Amino acid sequence: MIILGIDPGLRTTGFGVIHKQGTKLRYIASGTIKSGEGDLPTRLKVILDGVSQLTATYAPDCAAIEKVFVNVNPQSTLLLGQARGAAICGLVSASLSVAEYSPTQIKQAVTGTGKAAKQQVQEMVSRLLSLPGLPGSDAADALGVAICHANTHDTLAAIGAIDIAVRGAAGLRMKRGRLVG
Amino acid sequence: MIILGIDPGLRTTGFGVIHKQGTKLRYIASGTIKSGEGDLPTRLKVILDGVSQLTATYAPDCAAIEKVFVNVNPQSTLLLGQARGAAICGLVSASLSVAEYSPTQIKQAVTGTGKAAKQQVQEMVSRLLSLPGLPGSDAADALGVAICHANTHDTLAAIGAIDIAVRGAAGLRMKRGRLVG
Repeated sequence: MIILGIDPGLRTTGFGVIHKQGTKLRYIASGTIKSGEGDLPTRLKVILDGVSQLTATYAPDCAAIEKVFVNVNPQSTLLLGQARGAAICGLVSASLSVAEYSPTQIKQAVTGTGKAAKQQVQEMVSRLLSLPGLPGSDAADALGVAICHANTHDTLAAIGAIDIAVRGAAGLRMKRGRLVG
Repeated sequence: MIILGIDPGLRTTGFGVIHKQGTKLRYIASGTIKSGEGDLPTRLKVILDGVSQLTATYAPDCAAIEKVFVNVNPQSTLLLGQARGAAICGLVSASLSVAEYSPTQIKQAVTGTGKAAKQQVQEMVSRLLSLPGLPGSDAADALGVAICHANTHDTLAAIGAIDIAVRGAAGLRMKRGRLVG
């Protein structure tokens, strides 16, 4: 399964692509989309087109995006919201399911503590994906949300598996971890 | 020239389409896009697809969208921002230029005062476009932003014309109201 992780921002949108097979995670790509200096609609188009290009290039099976902080400056919150909206549009227009995780959930999944520093996240992402060096901060966050989704997927599948064992006896059918009968 | 006006919102996105020929404005269509009850990415997709469908149906030459208020609740501001981002993505993915106007600018353009009440905007939009009744509030705001853009276009053209007369004598050239030489 290929997972595309997105760390949204108006100026810089981080992305990370990983491959998950069983419990193994493999790095595919990461980087940033820079929206440049145009007016707001132009910058949102750069984000939309950039994310669309990523979905075309890496053909992910699903996507995950970081929930954003509410800024002290309401105008910044509004701008960040619009940038995040554009990134999500790039994902859903490729018919991808989009999971959302808070920074705390991502830090917890990557480092084991929800209060990890940025540097810790970069180091753990590098270790988990056997990277030759530290990824940039935005790319690390995007890879982090992809890793978080990979792990959460595991958890959900595990719950599904338990369901099969418990409910199977009652004649109920499970498909992909969901009750279908 | 066909103008598509958008009044963005997460729950309800208003739209209005008008035709401008010289100083005459003609009503073409208006209504709302309801994003339904899904999760956020699903709702943003409804807005994106809805706006895309409008651009395909009415083939507008340009678009205008209302600037949104910053809400007292930062979480609502963030949601509204994402909805507005999705609407703008629907416009820019059809390669439309997108102008932005504040509620005050729109009220000023439609009613002559920046402090008009909602009802006044609805009544003036109805009169300016010779509608048989009052449009709904969201549709009226969307038609209002389209009318505002139509008028602003006029103003810019008028300023361009004055520039031609004044600067023409000095050997400068104007093209579409802009100085080119």
